Amino acid sequence: IIPKYPATGTTIFSIMSALANEHKAINLSQGFPDFPIDEMLGSLVNKAIMDGFNQYAPMIGLQNLREAIANKILHFQKVEVNPNTEITITPGATYAIYTAFATILQPDDEVIVLEPAYDSYVPNIYTCGATPVRITLNDGTFEIDWNKIYAAITTKTKAIIINNPHNPCSVTWSEQDFQHLITLVEKHNLYVVSDEVYEHLVFDSKEHISVLRYPELRSRSFVIHSFGKAFHSTGWKMGYCIAPAELMHAFRAIHQYLAFSVNTPMQQGIATYLDDLSHLETTTRMLQQRRDFFLEQMKATRFKWLKPAAGSYFQLMNYEAISDLPSMEFAIWLTKNYSVACIPLSSFYQDDNNEKWVRFCFAKKEETLMAAVENLKSI
Amino acid sequence: IIPKYPATGTTIFSIMSALANEHKAINLSQGFPDFPIDEMLGSLVNKAIMDGFNQYAPMIGLQNLREAIANKILHFQKVEVNPNTEITITPGATYAIYTAFATILQPDDEVIVLEPAYDSYVPNIYTCGATPVRITLNDGTFEIDWNKIYAAITTKTKAIIINNPHNPCSVTWSEQDFQHLITLVEKHNLYVVSDEVYEHLVFDSKEHISVLRYPELRSRSFVIHSFGKAFHSTGWKMGYCIAPAELMHAFRAIHQYLAFSVNTPMQQGIATYLDDLSHLETTTRMLQQRRDFFLEQMKATRFKWLKPAAGSYFQLMNYEAISDLPSMEFAIWLTKNYSVACIPLSSFYQDDNNEKWVRFCFAKKEETLMAAVENLKSI
Ligand SMILES: CSCCC(=O)C(=O)O
Ligand SMILES: CSCCC(=O)C(=O)O
Repeated sequence: IIPKYPATGTTIFSIMSALANEHKAINLSQGFPDFPIDEMLGSLVNKAIMDGFNQYAPMIGLQNLREAIANKILHFQKVEVNPNTEITITPGATYAIYTAFATILQPDDEVIVLEPAYDSYVPNIYTCGATPVRITLNDGTFEIDWNKIYAAITTKTKAIIINNPHNPCSVTWSEQDFQHLITLVEKHNLYVVSDEVYEHLVFDSKEHISVLRYPELRSRSFVIHSFGKAFHSTGWKMGYCIAPAELMHAFRAIHQYLAFSVNTPMQQGIATYLDDLSHLETTTRMLQQRRDFFLEQMKATRFKWLKPAAGSYFQLMNYEAISDLPSMEFAIWLTKNYSVACIPLSSFYQDDNNEKWVRFCFAKKEETLMAAVENLKSI
Repeated sequence: IIPKYPATGTTIFSIMSALANEHKAINLSQGFPDFPIDEMLGSLVNKAIMDGFNQYAPMIGLQNLREAIANKILHFQKVEVNPNTEITITPGATYAIYTAFATILQPDDEVIVLEPAYDSYVPNIYTCGATPVRITLNDGTFEIDWNKIYAAITTKTKAIIINNPHNPCSVTWSEQDFQHLITLVEKHNLYVVSDEVYEHLVFDSKEHISVLRYPELRSRSFVIHSFGKAFHSTGWKMGYCIAPAELMHAFRAIHQYLAFSVNTPMQQGIATYLDDLSHLETTTRMLQQRRDFFLEQMKATRFKWLKPAAGSYFQLMNYEAISDLPSMEFAIWLTKNYSVACIPLSSFYQDDNNEKWVRFCFAKKEETLMAAVENLKSI
């Protein structure tokens, strides 16, 4: 078997979670909550199972779930999305991102990837026979240098993948970023894959700005959302993709023969749960409270941060004052010696990166965060 | 967007189910049961949700589920499978088949597909940039003409996909077929993708013979099974792939960045349910009873069949005595005029096929089957 991409290692999230288990460390590495889902959501899925929602859902997803999503988008983004032609339910957001790439990419196409980048993007692009072109965000500030992107565009550039709110940097896009993106994609006729899985984790009373709000972007974008992040149910693997009808038609041609359809009782349960959109505001409030709590506690440690996370459930922390180790080695050292697992920033880069940052997930019970900080204080 | 394959129409299963709904016809088309799942299974999933199995499962699947599968394979196939290195849980069998293709295929590779063929195989092969090479089964008997396969082998042939028990023909493989396959794949060094989703629907006291029983095949095979067919829960989209460690390692490199992992509470519920393997024997017995009931009733109609389905939950029926219409037109005519939906055999072929067969799904309540036959008797 000829591998589709170089270095098919195990994803860093599995590695660090395994290391955390091995050393009985507090796991602030892989991004998942350690608090329970809303009991009501669980009951709704149970009701769907008992009510017999156990056979194939329609390929595009249950009608009521797609309508609930359209309603949610109207509420939060103030834009209309057609539930029949522009939304498809997927078994998770990672799957949706892959399927978007498989829809648009031909061998030898190039895709702009901004680094640090979530670790599935580059392998996905290679699996489609295309080539990722990596552009690094500015060191430390993690801002986008648009000139670097323009310099990397070739006749083969087919798409750009963006991630807002950003994992692991927790930055959100400014109006200026969007204007730059519009100019870029219009000039070079690019598709956009917009990974917005942390859309409901945007803090400090800001709202999430989706590419859906910009008609110039929306017309060429695959927008990907995740119920796992919104409802603390990462293990349910439920997400969806929004794209204009023509692009969605092509997306469905791939999806139809890849997963075909998605867990029916989970769809039915989530659809009913979405009758009350305040659940999503509860998520935002709760995670903001965890972020604030974590940062307040972390003041007592020698870790430093640039800004509080604007979005996502991660906070990058600088450990310059603590150690000279590269971030992978530092993360392992921390897990083994201080029983707190985190994710090294370097794992979001292809090439070695010598920045002294690690990522902590604050989607945890207060007692978990407190216990972790207790350990970190002793360094 | 350049489509990955010609004629990206809607799958026949969605088309016929939609037509059935539109005309309020009895739906014996798309393969799914209309009877409920075992309440115990539903309760076990509910318990898993309430017990907090709601975050990411390991990428390869829950340990207890993989062990339960290894135990099941040992029981039914009398072969040992390593749960850690040789099994991966997938969001359905269709996904597993695609992922197996994505694992082994490079652009320009060729894959042998036996027609009639399940409708995802050919699009999957195209999505991977490879080329399907179609070999038709003998008309009427649906036996394999091995000489035709040998004649189609080229230096580019990389794999063969087989389906046993077969959808839609309901035949199962003979010892002779397996011996032919061994000779073929050893001579030409081919991979095997073995779609065995109907493994627990094998009738008349025969047992399912998996490629896993043949070391010469097992060493080069991706074997795909489905919980949806075994437990009447097609909408849960739960399946798995078995392959030797080296092939499985490569499979996981794709899966890790495609779905990453599979619904955790469903995995947990199914794992516990598999503590009692007699559930699977119950499935076999129940479906055999439905097949027998359906065929007994169908004697009163003008449809003819060659042999009772040896496996799967489908029965091909010949309508030569009723109509000259091609099978697609006949299926539509039947739905509109006699309120029974079925699947035309021609939809399992790329090129026009003028055989007068349609496929009925008998995984239905007795009252459903009885009502359908009542309508069919009046033709
Ligand atoms: C698929 S496991 C990774 C979860 C996640 O999104 C993260 O930790 O960044
Ligand atoms: C994915 S819908 C098709 C179900 C099925 O396996 C069939 O009807 O053949």
